[in-house]
Amino acid sequence: MRVEILCTGDEILTGKTVNTNYSHISRRLVDVGLGVHWGTTVGDDRESLLLAFRQAGERADAVIVNGGLGPTVDDLSQEVAAQAAGVELVLSDYWMKRMEESYARRGRVMPPNNKKQAMLPANAEFIDNPIGTACGFAVTIGKARFYFTPGVPREMRRMIDEQVIPRLLALGGIKGVSKLKRFHTFGIGESRADQMLGDIEAFKDGGGIKLGFQAHYPQLETKLAVRGEDESDLAARLAPIEAEVRRRLGNFIIAEDHETLEGVILAKLGERGLTLAVAETFTGGNIASRIAPLPGSETIFRKGVISRNGSIGAGDLLKESGASVALSVAVQLDEGPDRPEFGATIDVGVADAAGIVTRRARLLGGRDWVRIGATELGLDCLRRHLLGLPVDERIDFERR
Amino acid sequence: MRVEILCTGDEILTGKTVNTNYSHISRRLVDVGLGVHWGTTVGDDRESLLLAFRQAGERADAVIVNGGLGPTVDDLSQEVAAQAAGVELVLSDYWMKRMEESYARRGRVMPPNNKKQAMLPANAEFIDNPIGTACGFAVTIGKARFYFTPGVPREMRRMIDEQVIPRLLALGGIKGVSKLKRFHTFGIGESRADQMLGDIEAFKDGGGIKLGFQAHYPQLETKLAVRGEDESDLAARLAPIEAEVRRRLGNFIIAEDHETLEGVILAKLGERGLTLAVAETFTGGNIASRIAPLPGSETIFRKGVISRNGSIGAGDLLKESGASVALSVAVQLDEGPDRPEFGATIDVGVADAAGIVTRRARLLGGRDWVRIGATELGLDCLRRHLLGLPVDERIDFERR
Repeated sequence: MRVEILCTGDEILTGKTVNTNYSHISRRLVDVGLGVHWGTTVGDDRESLLLAFRQAGERADAVIVNGGLGPTVDDLSQEVAAQAAGVELVLSDYWMKRMEESYARRGRVMPPNNKKQAMLPANAEFIDNPIGTACGFAVTIGKARFYFTPGVPREMRRMIDEQVIPRLLALGGIKGVSKLKRFHTFGIGESRADQMLGDIEAFKDGGGIKLGFQAHYPQLETKLAVRGEDESDLAARLAPIEAEVRRRLGNFIIAEDHETLEGVILAKLGERGLTLAVAETFTGGNIASRIAPLPGSETIFRKGVISRNGSIGAGDLLKESGASVALSVAVQLDEGPDRPEFGATIDVGVADAAGIVTRRARLLGGRDWVRIGATELGLDCLRRHLLGLPVDERIDFERR
Repeated sequence: MRVEILCTGDEILTGKTVNTNYSHISRRLVDVGLGVHWGTTVGDDRESLLLAFRQAGERADAVIVNGGLGPTVDDLSQEVAAQAAGVELVLSDYWMKRMEESYARRGRVMPPNNKKQAMLPANAEFIDNPIGTACGFAVTIGKARFYFTPGVPREMRRMIDEQVIPRLLALGGIKGVSKLKRFHTFGIGESRADQMLGDIEAFKDGGGIKLGFQAHYPQLETKLAVRGEDESDLAARLAPIEAEVRRRLGNFIIAEDHETLEGVILAKLGERGLTLAVAETFTGGNIASRIAPLPGSETIFRKGVISRNGSIGAGDLLKESGASVALSVAVQLDEGPDRPEFGATIDVGVADAAGIVTRRARLLGGRDWVRIGATELGLDCLRRHLLGLPVDERIDFERR
């Protein structure tokens, strides 16, 4: 099945807003195994929209349209969709009532221009928006089924998952339920992770589970996409593969699914009733700012210290701060101007009542790259120490 | 003139990479007054590329193609461009020589697959890439002139400005030179800035200077785009308007053009031989991390302290750190869970040998929004104090 994404709006077309709605929709389609074949961006312009709808209707089987469902005059999606489908716009009494009720619940009267949002192409399939006034709908233009979604990211995200993807899977004759299992690692590059996992039978053609990676330095996300008859079938097939991936990626896994490295650290500290202090140099507050602002860190994060010349060791920080764990990350930059091969020596120390563990690593790649890597390395050493794992396992970004 | 942007590559199509190249190119086209009419994204797929080139060649006068000029087999832009233009690929001896010289300078031998990057459609117009091995080129497909650029952002950016935009202006018969003057403000929303500047004659239709805004909370960028016969004509027309904008936006201007707020602060401290210490709470290192990592801050940034419960006042920090200026930003969060109207009270203090100035503000908008706002407010108070400006001017994000 050939699926396209069509994004509308002057803000997106002119680059004022970076098109993260596109990448979100696209990733979700890839996650569920549908893929995406073409992307189009046009402005709030009647002629362009009509041409874009017609050309996509000739190329694709299904088109997801994003944006242009708002109440103002420059929101043209319903109107041009009706024109392209060769039908009139008709008022949806159901959606009018839903909008009025929604305003009434908040003690407000619905502004008259919201009526525009209940005008849908005749015979359009209604697509619910549980959290906004822009409802979605589906119509057929040319040989493709078009699914219209609002531009507001949280409304779009929910509707893509709950409404659009199930319809696309049904349209493509794809049965069952799907799940995406995610592992976040630090210290493994994409090609090595592929080597580490690629020979697992379930990931091979016809094996039933799709393996994918998304690198966002310094972390790598490993994704297992699986489709099954029902939830229990899915869980049964995924469980042994999940365990195998966990075994192979081992200590490099910093978090799974919606977890974050800093969240895992905070949870572990909280669980054991520990408090934390952090001393950093060139990372200049980046380490503290990953942990200190988290909900719940009020009682755990005791102190952060940033200095440029010379750093406080983890041992001294432990005494000075009165925290039960102290993390220090010192960065010794190379001499000379910033350049792609610019590097630094990173010294990490983690101190607690039992003593101090240390880790030294060399990172290359320019000032920003080194700073990002040193921040993650420091946090990861703390995680490893809290979990009783070795802090000195070699990482792929390291030069020795 | 109708200009389109066509982005190629599986990473972009599938959403693995957010398409910031598109928004950059698009903004630059808007900045110089060309605008953009259509965006297309296709993968590394021969059939899609050919169709995309042909359809764009029917719709547009000019098309900027980005990506697909690399040395690997999935880089197809030259090959499909030749096919769409109905010509053969021909080796550019000039570009082969340039690539070989570039490798030789770094003491390396050019890998054989780089030869692919010197294969250009016959009669293509060569477009120089001064910093990479992917040269650009231009060909005509259908009724449009196509300009091919590499996907590597820094190479693309330089080539768009230096090579592609001058060619587009010439193609559109647009004469002269253009300039973009930028002001960065903190504390003014887009609609108020529009009110403050909109009545300036030069910004009205036919006034010769295009006024634009780009909001990236908490900063607002105000852009003046002007085109003139030559540099001196341009400077003469821009100077009085620049001065007027500077007068109207006044103390809210935190930086101009490529400057940043933190850069302005660091420069001012350096100029006056001052050193700095920072104490923060809920901003958790975000303030320090704006200044401490900057080149040159080694001798200026003396110390940063982050605490969650209770904060050090600017006065105490000044004594404790030995710095000549101390900034403290304390955040008292409202009770309850995070929500859109969640707020906080921000207390900023700036201390030096002359005494302490303070500023209190209430910000609303959820935890993240408050954190970002408090970081900027603290830095801006420091800037204002260093420049001898009042630190307590009301900002638009503030509730009293």
